[in-house]
Amino acid sequence: MIIRDITVTPIAFRDPPLLNAVGLHEPLALRTIVQLHVEGGIVGLGEGSGGMDVADRLRQVADEVIGLNVFDLNGIEAAVNRVLGGDAGSLTRRERREVYAILDVAAHDAQGHLTGLPVSELLGGRVRDSVDYSAYLFYKYAGHPDPARSTDPADAAPDEWGAALDPAGIVAQARTLIERYGFSSIKLKAGVFPPEQEVAAMRALAEAFPGYPLRIDPNGAWSHETAVAVCAELGELLEYFEDPVLGIDGMAAVAREVERPLATNMCVVAFEHLPEAFAKDAVQIVLSDHHYWGGLRHTRELAAICGHWGVGVSMHSNSHLGISLAAMTHVAAATPELAYACDTHYPWNREDDIVRPGVLEIVDGAVAVPRAPGLGVELDPAALERQHQVFLDSGRTHRDDSGYIQQFQPDFSSTLPRF
Amino acid sequence: MIIRDITVTPIAFRDPPLLNAVGLHEPLALRTIVQLHVEGGIVGLGEGSGGMDVADRLRQVADEVIGLNVFDLNGIEAAVNRVLGGDAGSLTRRERREVYAILDVAAHDAQGHLTGLPVSELLGGRVRDSVDYSAYLFYKYAGHPDPARSTDPADAAPDEWGAALDPAGIVAQARTLIERYGFSSIKLKAGVFPPEQEVAAMRALAEAFPGYPLRIDPNGAWSHETAVAVCAELGELLEYFEDPVLGIDGMAAVAREVERPLATNMCVVAFEHLPEAFAKDAVQIVLSDHHYWGGLRHTRELAAICGHWGVGVSMHSNSHLGISLAAMTHVAAATPELAYACDTHYPWNREDDIVRPGVLEIVDGAVAVPRAPGLGVELDPAALERQHQVFLDSGRTHRDDSGYIQQFQPDFSSTLPRF
Repeated sequence: MIIRDITVTPIAFRDPPLLNAVGLHEPLALRTIVQLHVEGGIVGLGEGSGGMDVADRLRQVADEVIGLNVFDLNGIEAAVNRVLGGDAGSLTRRERREVYAILDVAAHDAQGHLTGLPVSELLGGRVRDSVDYSAYLFYKYAGHPDPARSTDPADAAPDEWGAALDPAGIVAQARTLIERYGFSSIKLKAGVFPPEQEVAAMRALAEAFPGYPLRIDPNGAWSHETAVAVCAELGELLEYFEDPVLGIDGMAAVAREVERPLATNMCVVAFEHLPEAFAKDAVQIVLSDHHYWGGLRHTRELAAICGHWGVGVSMHSNSHLGISLAAMTHVAAATPELAYACDTHYPWNREDDIVRPGVLEIVDGAVAVPRAPGLGVELDPAALERQHQVFLDSGRTHRDDSGYIQQFQPDFSSTLPRF
Repeated sequence: MIIRDITVTPIAFRDPPLLNAVGLHEPLALRTIVQLHVEGGIVGLGEGSGGMDVADRLRQVADEVIGLNVFDLNGIEAAVNRVLGGDAGSLTRRERREVYAILDVAAHDAQGHLTGLPVSELLGGRVRDSVDYSAYLFYKYAGHPDPARSTDPADAAPDEWGAALDPAGIVAQARTLIERYGFSSIKLKAGVFPPEQEVAAMRALAEAFPGYPLRIDPNGAWSHETAVAVCAELGELLEYFEDPVLGIDGMAAVAREVERPLATNMCVVAFEHLPEAFAKDAVQIVLSDHHYWGGLRHTRELAAICGHWGVGVSMHSNSHLGISLAAMTHVAAATPELAYACDTHYPWNREDDIVRPGVLEIVDGAVAVPRAPGLGVELDPAALERQHQVFLDSGRTHRDDSGYIQQFQPDFSSTLPRF
């Protein structure tokens, strides 16, 4: 059960021109794939944050992780902290957890193959047979602008989703997602247009999809006054109100004035933030994300803590592929405290997936928890090589939504709050 | 990996006449042993609180647990909560966790046998190769009084330990324990004699064993004023000060006036207590105990929470035998947050153990973490039957330290605080 080798593969895959408070998704999203080779020919798969930094950090820790037992998660985590937490140029705890998380997922996958158990069983057992996801709506351009041809995104050739730049476009996008995947709750990534337009989009969604739980997430783009006013206007329409403003104190101030529960994946993103956030009653729901909370075991731990403090648990997503979706599904399945549909970007990115298709279909808005050993997904080596080549050809090293939108809107400022 | 049967065996074993704030240990301590029979001939061992109530509760839940996968800890816990948490006569969460904990240990043992892994690996990996325990000193009579012969404990025939009723007796007891087991930290169960005598015992210990970390635990027998005065007198001698007074508010008030960290296994004994206790800074160290925190996985969870809130972690013990010592050792080994020697009653009770000897020796004050699959201990069926017969013959159904001492001291009152 000893880890014999670690293969780190940075990849890039196509991403639509999705808008958010700090800019625009670039044409390629980045991700890092890990293959943990364990004695006996077992390979565990991990996926996490992309870019050269993460790949370099994983390679830095590899020597210390090779030789450990794949069940020794404490040992793997300690190795990451030892190598990356040293004196000179040491990383923050969150940066280290992001690296560890990828290894944690791969270790769980390998553990499952070694024991014949699905990862959800290794995490304490499946409390649900399928995991609900929400329709994750974005304002978007019709397609990626081609700076060589025009600096006006309105001139871009449309992709299969088309534009969503007003309430009608958002409702049309929701309809497409719901028709394809059967989602029964909806989240709008906001903070892009003036709040009144985004409120109108939410009202249009409520009218088009009566009874659907709705969430709005402006990523801290609003002032206190805007946040309170939007929440008053939308009122009972909102299942929860995600990151209307920045910071624990800002969220606490809004929480005191609104009726709806506040959720966050911005001001509470590490265990170090919990004591203050809970003491100030700043958030009523924490969005877990195993990629930055330190893997699957620590995500269970986060959920348990939230349960004990009477704080709700939902799940955040970034652009991701199938290994992550499988990991999200397993940990969600083993988390009794989870009471909301999880976020996922998978419909936006799945065409370039590097696992073989079939296991991770979203049906009736949910992914059935894989019952095969480990994560239950199988790597497609040709697809991995293809997306690695895309990464190499791109010359990209990190994500930069703000820099990208400034190519087309030179006066764009990512300073928040904006409205 | 399906659970096919559960054998519940209440046992009793000899216990010396150890004094505490609410009375005297009876001649027999009670415990419950579970054998979880898993398909394939695997048997997982669990040990926990004794008495007829616990055995009956385990038998009540057996039908709902049989048929579950032994890795499905969430399912086993839900079954316990479903059966024992119903409307009429439902148990408290803590009572349910006490029942679940025994099954949790047995399930982990079985998981280890199924996978070939020691329980410490199933819990995330060994961060230490051996677990330190402290010398656990008690005021005690020379032997158990025989009410048929005399109501004066001074007339009792001495057991192998002899009396410890003054500072010299306590130092002699410490010397015996340290000579036999090599302990390098010391805890005194106090709250028995007037505080000045117990302070004198601590001073005598400090003189006899210079440099040894010392702890005192009066189990809430002291008033606020007494607690503050004792802490001021003992000052730097104390590694920590355990449950000087009762209740979260009481502990918080003492904490505000003393320099030493306060520890508890009395006012914070369930996850529900953590938010208030931490908000009030009532305790600086929580004594974990998998028997009432809901098993091994939840003990890891408790330790992680304490780590995130900057609260220390130590480990509490009640009278127990080898299955529990093995479980304590495995979970302690997998708990990076643990920074103190754990408590154990094992030296007082080990002669009647129901596991085969050899694995759990305390050497240099520590137990080596077993490397065999599961808990690493083997049941001795003849010993189990022997101690079960002792239980049946005793007619005992529950522990009653106060009722026992009142046989000899009819005016004894267990009302606290006493001093």
